[in-house]
Amino acid sequence: MKTDFLYIDISGKIARLIKDKVLKAGDRLPSVRMLCKEHNISMNTAKRVFWELEAQSLIESRPQSGYFVCQLPYQRLPLPALTNPLPSGRTSEPDELIRKVYSTMGKKDLTLFSIGAPAKEFLPLAKLNKEIVNATRALPASGTAYEQLQGNDLLRRMIAARAISWGGHLQEDDLITTAGGMNAISFCLMALTKPGDTIAMESPCYPGSLQLARSLGLKVMEIPTHPVTGLDIATLKNRIDKIDICLLVPNFNTPLGSCMPEENKKAVVKLLAKHNIPLIEDDIYGELYFGTHRPKCCKTFDREGNVLLCSSFSKTLAPGYRVGWVAPGKYKEQLLKLKLVHAISSSAITQEAIANFLKTGRYDHHLRKMRAMVQQNYIQYVNAVAEYFPADTRVSRPQGGLAMWVEFNRNVDTTALFDIAIKQKISIAPGRMFTLQHQYENCMRLSLGLLLTDEVRQKLKQLGKMVNMMI
Amino acid sequence: MKTDFLYIDISGKIARLIKDKVLKAGDRLPSVRMLCKEHNISMNTAKRVFWELEAQSLIESRPQSGYFVCQLPYQRLPLPALTNPLPSGRTSEPDELIRKVYSTMGKKDLTLFSIGAPAKEFLPLAKLNKEIVNATRALPASGTAYEQLQGNDLLRRMIAARAISWGGHLQEDDLITTAGGMNAISFCLMALTKPGDTIAMESPCYPGSLQLARSLGLKVMEIPTHPVTGLDIATLKNRIDKIDICLLVPNFNTPLGSCMPEENKKAVVKLLAKHNIPLIEDDIYGELYFGTHRPKCCKTFDREGNVLLCSSFSKTLAPGYRVGWVAPGKYKEQLLKLKLVHAISSSAITQEAIANFLKTGRYDHHLRKMRAMVQQNYIQYVNAVAEYFPADTRVSRPQGGLAMWVEFNRNVDTTALFDIAIKQKISIAPGRMFTLQHQYENCMRLSLGLLLTDEVRQKLKQLGKMVNMMI
Repeated sequence: MKTDFLYIDISGKIARLIKDKVLKAGDRLPSVRMLCKEHNISMNTAKRVFWELEAQSLIESRPQSGYFVCQLPYQRLPLPALTNPLPSGRTSEPDELIRKVYSTMGKKDLTLFSIGAPAKEFLPLAKLNKEIVNATRALPASGTAYEQLQGNDLLRRMIAARAISWGGHLQEDDLITTAGGMNAISFCLMALTKPGDTIAMESPCYPGSLQLARSLGLKVMEIPTHPVTGLDIATLKNRIDKIDICLLVPNFNTPLGSCMPEENKKAVVKLLAKHNIPLIEDDIYGELYFGTHRPKCCKTFDREGNVLLCSSFSKTLAPGYRVGWVAPGKYKEQLLKLKLVHAISSSAITQEAIANFLKTGRYDHHLRKMRAMVQQNYIQYVNAVAEYFPADTRVSRPQGGLAMWVEFNRNVDTTALFDIAIKQKISIAPGRMFTLQHQYENCMRLSLGLLLTDEVRQKLKQLGKMVNMMI
Repeated sequence: MKTDFLYIDISGKIARLIKDKVLKAGDRLPSVRMLCKEHNISMNTAKRVFWELEAQSLIESRPQSGYFVCQLPYQRLPLPALTNPLPSGRTSEPDELIRKVYSTMGKKDLTLFSIGAPAKEFLPLAKLNKEIVNATRALPASGTAYEQLQGNDLLRRMIAARAISWGGHLQEDDLITTAGGMNAISFCLMALTKPGDTIAMESPCYPGSLQLARSLGLKVMEIPTHPVTGLDIATLKNRIDKIDICLLVPNFNTPLGSCMPEENKKAVVKLLAKHNIPLIEDDIYGELYFGTHRPKCCKTFDREGNVLLCSSFSKTLAPGYRVGWVAPGKYKEQLLKLKLVHAISSSAITQEAIANFLKTGRYDHHLRKMRAMVQQNYIQYVNAVAEYFPADTRVSRPQGGLAMWVEFNRNVDTTALFDIAIKQKISIAPGRMFTLQHQYENCMRLSLGLLLTDEVRQKLKQLGKMVNMMI
């Protein structure tokens, strides 16, 4: 933790020098090695100082030359505005588009900017393999037996212990494991809604949640969302009488990457509890913060048991393991019944493997490393987008998570761009996927889960050329 | 295969001698060793000859003395009659009872006659463990990556290749993998029904299916079912106009253990296709036949793609792996969409492990061994029930699967028996669990998945005493 504060301290000081114009645009910064000596810090801490400044768009790196103060600090590309979703009258599901995009997944000859999962370079594969072997040894009947309904004891205990990091308090018995995060959300929605109910969500929104809601016969109300502060509370308040249930991703949601401030989280929890509207909170990106502290959850402020907190290890450890969980508050009995009738139990081996990985303390070490890698990847992406895409492009500045949102001018149609790009072996996630209305056609999501290697950078450059030809 | 025919040949000849009264009640049969010499066969074949005759209640074994022709061949305990389910007006879910019974699962100090899964003694644990390790080596990103939506290629190919054993024809692309068999059925029901629809099922019926149907808001129509020949076709025909969907377990269903004759399967498929009513066929017990041939499926006779065949490896390999599948016929697109929104993908490692286990050919070897073990266990149970329970007890004679149905006289209340038995560390599955109506209160299911060791036999004897005190 000491390291965390050190790099923030030092980067804060340098940032002040830049803002006070002591350091001016174009000025060269000391080398990493120099910074180490000056402050008596490690190479890693020195690197994080520079990444932090780069994330704030205050400095930029030039190959073979080092770091320089940016020409236009803070403003190289503007942020997208608060979204303004169309009313839900003209709902039309982008099924065909989603099918097209999903059919590119797993194809090895494609560059998948559309991917929703972390690249394997981010994941501790060797250590997980070892835990899988250990799990077959430790479990009764080698993991072939049905597990108890609520899920692996140790895993639930380890998840409960981590609640302290987001200011929450959970016990083993408050948790139910599931086959991944979407499975948790699907159980919540099946337990608490009936066809015809209205569900409020952020807009733009993860396509899987939109499709899930539609498949259960729900009406989707898309709420305006800010790329930095997330859901617009005022709109939620205005429409509260029409809402039966609410599904939010308050921390680093996909595709915007926004993170709701604490006071907004508090306000939403209070508002929904007052109207007895259950809140399903999807926190799968919460651990992937770039700053010094994990953001709190809505669940942190839940006094009534009205928040169903869902998460998984799919974004931080192993998507293919299908291990997720829900802390369903006062809805626990309904959730348990749902799990029993739809799934009987969860996959025993992968749960046990993750439980033991957590128990060894390796998870925190892994997360620290992964956060730094994703943050650096993000910086590379922001800079590359600024370099290759039109000057009027807007881009979100997530402070965590695996997604950033790119907004072009109105002439660019990203659905058409998909068809052009796929011919050059590039798959993108067009904005239209993230809504049920005819909107966001000039936007796309970029995934921070794909490492921006030189090869991938070339593909992004190619994509930039295609966009430039459309404007 | 030669062995299979040999033991049937020889047991057939002995059976004729008994029926023709050449061998009379109380006569001693030759020893296993003698039989080997006489027919020039292996010990295993000789043992199977005796088991086969024992399964037909023609002979019985006496400790230290050998096999003897039975006192009352075929009739020691009568079969239950065709069930006569109450009309669905007075539906009441046995939730509380089911919760009580399920809460005993996995408790090591209890004898679980209520268990629904095969004991670990039946399963090839060491070989599966090896395949788990191989899977982490063979899979991309060690199995941490999202798998393709439809499921593991090799696994689907291996399942398709096995279709020949039930007279079917499937290709890899006809199959979708799921997280266990109930997950497959749950996707089918979610894809094809809406609340208020009526579903026809056998009665008594697996409680999980009843609960699943109720949780989706379906009306359940319980159809009379015969302990040998299964669903009563005449009743189905009479009520066909009121039915929206049908869920059947034609082969060795739980709890009755019945197996529909081929002509009945044909008739059901034809009838439902004519009325455009989808048939979900649950075949999880199909591989566990005691005879020489695997029974066919309804799917075998499906020309219209109207049968959604569901199965899993939970009854034959590894309940805790959660690997199941569905061959959804013409409903494939709907099923794929359901899987995408509710689960994204299946657990990669356990699917790969089972796929490779199948590929090595070990599965057939394992099944041959497991069938013989389960059959012998069944024989022991039938004989033990005849010995320890009241003389007017009726018992089903499954020719495969993991369940048998025991019917006491009207004075016995098995729901009350559960409460009494649990105090002596015995858990049973009362008949009331298997219906939504107030019936089968004098019945219970015994599981052939629990090995009848000496210790378990003592518990069954204890249970018999409790029943005798109730009559």
